[in-house]
Amino acid sequence: MIILGVDPGTHRAGYGLIKETDGDVSFLDYGCVQIKPTKDNYGNLLILYNSFLKIIEKWKPDVMSVEKLFFFKNAKTITKVSEARGVIILAGLKHDLKIKEFTPLQIKQAVSAYGKADKKAVQKMVKLILGLEKVPEPDDAADALAAAICCSNTVI
Amino acid sequence: MIILGVDPGTHRAGYGLIKETDGDVSFLDYGCVQIKPTKDNYGNLLILYNSFLKIIEKWKPDVMSVEKLFFFKNAKTITKVSEARGVIILAGLKHDLKIKEFTPLQIKQAVSAYGKADKKAVQKMVKLILGLEKVPEPDDAADALAAAICCSNTVI
Repeated sequence: MIILGVDPGTHRAGYGLIKETDGDVSFLDYGCVQIKPTKDNYGNLLILYNSFLKIIEKWKPDVMSVEKLFFFKNAKTITKVSEARGVIILAGLKHDLKIKEFTPLQIKQAVSAYGKADKKAVQKMVKLILGLEKVPEPDDAADALAAAICCSNTVI
Repeated sequence: MIILGVDPGTHRAGYGLIKETDGDVSFLDYGCVQIKPTKDNYGNLLILYNSFLKIIEKWKPDVMSVEKLFFFKNAKTITKVSEARGVIILAGLKHDLKIKEFTPLQIKQAVSAYGKADKKAVQKMVKLILGLEKVPEPDDAADALAAAICCSNTVI
């Protein structure tokens, strides 16, 4: 089973792909969709949607594992990130992916057995679990891989 | 110029179409995309997206006018409605619509010159402005027509 982990954002959205086989996980790919902020409020939604469609068409994952949004500074941020999250999930639905979501705490615990792990700790543990040669950069991509690992630990 | 007004929601999203010609507005259509709540958290996003694509392909509007989200009871509601809003806006972007947004206050003032107008007052004023035979139902559709009227009053 191929799992696409996603760390959603309006202008930076991390993605990470792993393959789960009988409880073992192996690494496929990771990266970050980065969009230049412009005056256009909504151009990013189309770019995010098209970028995730391409990733899904290339890797044909079975499941999308998305980080849940928690504790935002203001209503504007949570609105914008949720809109971005909506179009990324839509890209998954267009290809019949199962959508699973996990809290940041669940995702951190899945890779570190310690819910308060910082960004660097998550990067190191993801490197170790997946046997990567270097830590995944940027941290959005590491968080996305962690979301995929978290999903692989649960019964789907 | 054809304007598609939208009152976004997760399982009920109102839409209203008007034509603006040299400052005059005329009525084209209105309705409400209604989705049965199910256990599936995200099926509604695909239905909303496909429904708004169909409306846009039928009427070929130039602009989408969407109500801004304000003052929600809790983070979960604002997250879910924003995800829905994101995929509806995406449907517009796929067809190169210009996206405009207005606060509930701006929309109410556009039809009633009174920002605290209730749902029934908005319905009555929309009926009057567009010369409809009866008040638009449900109120989500009336709100969407009001969003379109509000947009027609502004320089695009």
